[in-house]
Amino acid sequence: MQPTDKIQLTQTVQKGGCAAKIPARELRQILSQVRFPPSHPDLLVDGGLFDDAAIFKVTEEVALVQTLDFFTPILDSPGLFGAVAATNALSDVYAMGGRPKTAMGILIFPMGQLPNELIIEMMQAASDKIAEAQAHFVGGHSIDDETLKFGLSVTGYVHPQKIWSNAGAQRGDHLLLTKPLGTGTLTAALKRREATEEDIGEAIASMMQLNNAVDLLTADQLTHVHAATDITGFGFSGHSMQMAKASQKTFQIQFSRLPVFQRAAEFIEKGFLTKAHRSNDLYTQESLQTSNLNDLQKKILHDPQTSGGLLLSVSASASHGILESLRKKFIQAEKIGEVLAPAAHQVIFES
Amino acid sequence: MQPTDKIQLTQTVQKGGCAAKIPARELRQILSQVRFPPSHPDLLVDGGLFDDAAIFKVTEEVALVQTLDFFTPILDSPGLFGAVAATNALSDVYAMGGRPKTAMGILIFPMGQLPNELIIEMMQAASDKIAEAQAHFVGGHSIDDETLKFGLSVTGYVHPQKIWSNAGAQRGDHLLLTKPLGTGTLTAALKRREATEEDIGEAIASMMQLNNAVDLLTADQLTHVHAATDITGFGFSGHSMQMAKASQKTFQIQFSRLPVFQRAAEFIEKGFLTKAHRSNDLYTQESLQTSNLNDLQKKILHDPQTSGGLLLSVSASASHGILESLRKKFIQAEKIGEVLAPAAHQVIFES
Repeated sequence: MQPTDKIQLTQTVQKGGCAAKIPARELRQILSQVRFPPSHPDLLVDGGLFDDAAIFKVTEEVALVQTLDFFTPILDSPGLFGAVAATNALSDVYAMGGRPKTAMGILIFPMGQLPNELIIEMMQAASDKIAEAQAHFVGGHSIDDETLKFGLSVTGYVHPQKIWSNAGAQRGDHLLLTKPLGTGTLTAALKRREATEEDIGEAIASMMQLNNAVDLLTADQLTHVHAATDITGFGFSGHSMQMAKASQKTFQIQFSRLPVFQRAAEFIEKGFLTKAHRSNDLYTQESLQTSNLNDLQKKILHDPQTSGGLLLSVSASASHGILESLRKKFIQAEKIGEVLAPAAHQVIFES
Repeated sequence: MQPTDKIQLTQTVQKGGCAAKIPARELRQILSQVRFPPSHPDLLVDGGLFDDAAIFKVTEEVALVQTLDFFTPILDSPGLFGAVAATNALSDVYAMGGRPKTAMGILIFPMGQLPNELIIEMMQAASDKIAEAQAHFVGGHSIDDETLKFGLSVTGYVHPQKIWSNAGAQRGDHLLLTKPLGTGTLTAALKRREATEEDIGEAIASMMQLNNAVDLLTADQLTHVHAATDITGFGFSGHSMQMAKASQKTFQIQFSRLPVFQRAAEFIEKGFLTKAHRSNDLYTQESLQTSNLNDLQKKILHDPQTSGGLLLSVSASASHGILESLRKKFIQAEKIGEVLAPAAHQVIFES
């Protein structure tokens, strides 16, 4: 067994991070053949079956926001990987306007092949991140198997009248994005030893930021958030398309305003791509208008994010103030576009 | 790719079922080195960190019971495996006196290596079982990886004053067990092609039974249940020891009263054992008094169960009636022992 400090977690696995998700189209096609019972009225938001968070009403004042996410290492250091995996799982609760309350760990670990110290470091980082989110690490499940995977099942609370769904974007709303894009290509470069964790430190710091916009906004500002989603495995293209479709609107995005990590374009040009770059392209191809963009720009749109930012649809009147509030924590948050009446394409990209 | 009806799921994996859990002792030793923050007062029952269910209070009337479980195939048929995996995960909620409310799926599937129809069959069976439990399948997470695994993250409700913990057994209580023992050796024989699913049909039917004792007992009978746990990967030995320890009592068990599946002894004698038979022996060796038992009997005690029965500690005065109620569904339920004052060993086995 190698000494702990020599082990590079990304070199222990074949597939990295959200890139190992089952492609959305294929999964939907498979699950469409299962006869699920009719939805219960207390199920306020269906998890879309293996996609986002679900919301289930407990009382008139409290609903549960539930989500589950885990993946193979996308970083080499167990502490960083544990923190990012935890942040990523907690993020879906924030994306629904909720606050995390409890978390259960999901650990798949090759006992005997990797040293147990790695578990301690991952767990410590996850525990610290759960505490930062003011949630509680209540239990979990572990299994001995070949390829390391880690993540959380998270339950949060949200007031049933204050849910951020992805279906509420209104015509005239401004669209805000809290974090830069590019974690997919940067972690692919890390996995192929063309970049170090230091090289992609900006992206790692971003992936470790809790998406707790709900804690940054004033009570008045919160009433102006009409829709939200977090940008993860399906990329900016996939998640913006899903939100536009759910809201039955068209989003107009200024590509030049999209925040992108410094070295993301460089690594995409060098060819550090994942399977998801292609599957996200396929998933969205009939819904995007991208004729003003070049190939590199399109690949940035399809880049799968791990622990990506929130995409918020907010009242135009409150947009400036909300952006100021978000920038207290998310310094690269940006107004990236507007919501239009429904048109032929769900998302139109201006250059 | 093989045609779906020729695939035997147990032949696609190295390790089967709960036997692939990380051993309890090792996990506790590892997690003892993580600095978890102090427990919150609303966390009424800690998940024991990667062991049982956790309970978190929402209001004075409602607390959440949360648990998470998934494993590699222990059966060949995807429908049977999906049903057993779902039943097993739901069981922990019942073991706390709760009723399941929501479930999220956890699917790890080797896309391209196994046909997608297997997913449909597993999901359909899990969905049907969740519906039988009057709970709701609200979402989940899927990942493309080599070895198939499936399970659920389950949230149930329990009244904070009506929790069945494993710490409440009282001196003089009668101990009841709802299902026979032996799923570990029977599924090991299946995996090694020495038994068919038909041969072990009795055990499969048992593993598919929801542990909903809470629905079978009268309101008065429910007040006489002082402690409960479900028998899973740590075997009868491990789980009875944990309950006796948590209750600070000694359990006296009549081995001859323990229900055991018909062919379990035969397969244990033939040597169909799992790693857990040994690790459960190690885990419990200082706590059991087994000098009246032979080797075969001891191995039955250590047999790891998947979706095993409930061990209930109930008032002696109500024991007969409760057993009658349980037998409406669990026909082999049995009174297997009594609760004594604490002694040198936590569990004493009479022959």
